Amino acid sequence: MTHTNTESTALDADVIIIGAGISGSAAAKALHDRGDRVLVVEANDRIGGRTWTEPEGAPGGPIDNGGMFIGETHTHLIELGTSLGLEMTPSGKPGADTYVVRGDVLRAPDEQLDPDISFVPEFLSSLEALDALAESVGWDRPWESPDAASLDSKTVATWLEETVESVEVRRLHALIVNAILGADPYEVSLLYWAYYVSECEGIQSLMGTRDGAQWAWWVGGAAQVSWRIADAIGREKVLLDWAVTRVEQDDSRVVVYSGQRSLRARHVIVAMSPLAANQIRFQPALPTARAQLQTRAPMGRYYKLQVRYPSTFWVDQGFSGALVDTDDVGVFLLDGTKPTDSLATLIGFVGGSNYDRWAVRTAEERQGAFIDLLIKAFGPEAAEPSYFHETDWTQQTWAQGGPVTYMPPGVLAHFGSALREPVGRIHFAGTEASFQWSGYMEGGVRAGQKAAAAIAEALQ
Amino acid sequence: MTHTNTESTALDADVIIIGAGISGSAAAKALHDRGDRVLVVEANDRIGGRTWTEPEGAPGGPIDNGGMFIGETHTHLIELGTSLGLEMTPSGKPGADTYVVRGDVLRAPDEQLDPDISFVPEFLSSLEALDALAESVGWDRPWESPDAASLDSKTVATWLEETVESVEVRRLHALIVNAILGADPYEVSLLYWAYYVSECEGIQSLMGTRDGAQWAWWVGGAAQVSWRIADAIGREKVLLDWAVTRVEQDDSRVVVYSGQRSLRARHVIVAMSPLAANQIRFQPALPTARAQLQTRAPMGRYYKLQVRYPSTFWVDQGFSGALVDTDDVGVFLLDGTKPTDSLATLIGFVGGSNYDRWAVRTAEERQGAFIDLLIKAFGPEAAEPSYFHETDWTQQTWAQGGPVTYMPPGVLAHFGSALREPVGRIHFAGTEASFQWSGYMEGGVRAGQKAAAAIAEALQ
Repeated sequence: MTHTNTESTALDADVIIIGAGISGSAAAKALHDRGDRVLVVEANDRIGGRTWTEPEGAPGGPIDNGGMFIGETHTHLIELGTSLGLEMTPSGKPGADTYVVRGDVLRAPDEQLDPDISFVPEFLSSLEALDALAESVGWDRPWESPDAASLDSKTVATWLEETVESVEVRRLHALIVNAILGADPYEVSLLYWAYYVSECEGIQSLMGTRDGAQWAWWVGGAAQVSWRIADAIGREKVLLDWAVTRVEQDDSRVVVYSGQRSLRARHVIVAMSPLAANQIRFQPALPTARAQLQTRAPMGRYYKLQVRYPSTFWVDQGFSGALVDTDDVGVFLLDGTKPTDSLATLIGFVGGSNYDRWAVRTAEERQGAFIDLLIKAFGPEAAEPSYFHETDWTQQTWAQGGPVTYMPPGVLAHFGSALREPVGRIHFAGTEASFQWSGYMEGGVRAGQKAAAAIAEALQ
Repeated sequence: MTHTNTESTALDADVIIIGAGISGSAAAKALHDRGDRVLVVEANDRIGGRTWTEPEGAPGGPIDNGGMFIGETHTHLIELGTSLGLEMTPSGKPGADTYVVRGDVLRAPDEQLDPDISFVPEFLSSLEALDALAESVGWDRPWESPDAASLDSKTVATWLEETVESVEVRRLHALIVNAILGADPYEVSLLYWAYYVSECEGIQSLMGTRDGAQWAWWVGGAAQVSWRIADAIGREKVLLDWAVTRVEQDDSRVVVYSGQRSLRARHVIVAMSPLAANQIRFQPALPTARAQLQTRAPMGRYYKLQVRYPSTFWVDQGFSGALVDTDDVGVFLLDGTKPTDSLATLIGFVGGSNYDRWAVRTAEERQGAFIDLLIKAFGPEAAEPSYFHETDWTQQTWAQGGPVTYMPPGVLAHFGSALREPVGRIHFAGTEASFQWSGYMEGGVRAGQKAAAAIAEALQ
């Protein structure tokens, strides 16, 4: 599709995409492929957004500081990445998972804890209860589910107090929520958590250590999806260090500003988290529901810890490397070793209130406690890592947190529909705008492609 | 105090104050009075921030679209305003207050509901329970109070479910929270609400219809405090349409940017709400606690409705004009008539979930429902207003809501101390930074003067 009339050539592009993360990139590719002129503007000096790969950033192979997981049902992402020539590699390692709970180191062969351990039956039934709640909420329009207002008036902590007896099970739930959302049960809406579990195909999928949501990676790193799209549409179409300060729309066009600079297009896609979108002034003002959403859907807080060793010595000892620690560190750990790497990797996610506990300590103290945990779980070989790295997502100027958006009570039931609704010529993408797999790369791709399709229809 | 050395004259000011609201203005005056060179930068095209007076904006006298109330114990504000030559006028009117609860119009002479009404004893005891909770939390360091973490893990709605039986009393609490914070019990942290009640001297003070927190006004309007300070320090020192985009500090100075423009000073005062402060990029990045606070302390949502009549006909009928409606409109109403006005005024506050219900209707529908309520409460004379005006604070580009900041669960207990802690050469003011009367003009003045005093000490 080529525009030849005067109006069109006075524009800098048919569509401007704000944000060169995987969602904005997927949108840009979809529009470019059908012949639309696109420009992508990005506040950071790198392409990838919440995917952030450093090919030479660490010894032993490329390192992903951000999102990296491909789930079994991440059809849109898999198709997109494969079409760009990327290869997948499975994430799972054989062996038992490990749980550290109140001082005990417990093994879970085949991902199953021994049901004779005192707290395990209640843990399993509480996960079933969570799945049942998630199913009742659904992922399509959680704000219209029967108990939406009531579920959105309480925190996950209140629900745990009401329904869970044992300290161990409460701690396990707290660890899971903190690791997955980067926020603690005490601050997360029960409706939002139930929605999140639903839209990610259940709690077992979310917690999966070798399948479900954590099934595979891209060889070479996750940000390659966005990089290759930039290559395909032309790197000169992706403007870095171009932080949008203002978006104006009228009934014929959109003007996107970064300070004194401006670009004109027919439509714009805001491919960012609601929090990041709130850095932009919109003229005319956004409808109240969208404006309010953007002021009250924060990002989690998060360390991604990565430690590398000469070999996967834990696998040799029968451990998968997957570990849930509810005690000192408060971490969800996974093996992150790719066959193409020359060093083995363990990846730790420290989020929410566990992040807070560690943020007041030094980097050395964090590393020390983390290594101590690995020694406790996997033996003395863990004492001598080849490399240690932590990414503090709260210190990222534009993301302002990680890994994902969470919602406190009162947001999803009342402003949730604004996640996805366009406002005139402004369309919203970013993983938060996806019906399913919001929080994952897959959600970003789906939301980007959906926004592109809506604009394609409008441009007909 | 005059700086004559080279370093000082290379600076544009000793102190730059971001925000020309009452807090920033109070800070500017305090520093100016001791001889420091100050510059005030303001994103809006008007001085006053969340106080917003239009002297000629309405028939019948000046109109305050924003904050306006002086409380009995607002010593700092009273001293400041009086020193600027302003005069106070009492807010209270004689007569009975009115409650509209589930269809019944109830009168409350001397602010007291008849204790023989079925729900009144529980209402009174629930207010006492709230005050007791507030006292246990305190206003000094609520995050250190004994049950801080637990109280901050639940919403006010959960507390009401646990402790209040009757629908009427739950509705009354909901109306009060919505009107005072612009947010519903379903989204507000119980710790935050208890703190707010404590720091405003108790729920009776907050709800006061003629004394307590709503005791008096400034003749001519509230924004005059900031205007007269601008006159005193020199209007050329107050730069309007100067939205700060970036603040850089090193160990000798601060640079404040608005796009390409920049100003240099020894110190900066960020005299804004946490939400508004999050529009600024800080370099180096703020400590995580402050950065996180700024992403998760939203503003309420709020209509301020003002309706004017030829006379205070309600007073003639024995009504004070104060009205609590838990039914159709969901409004907290007060008489707003000053002796210097030529028309009588009723002021309605529609906040939080009541705002949401009305935001999806037209302005005409809102006006119609509001006038219908006034007819029901005060008789047919209410049918013919001389003037009707609504201010939607969610549509204010820079405030992004009103009347005040509220906190969902998980913020105050964990990030609250960052409200007031300076970060190097960056000091925080705005009403949210005050120990007491946060949310009121008084808190703004106190926080501004406190930041100024801290800088004065550093400049010695």
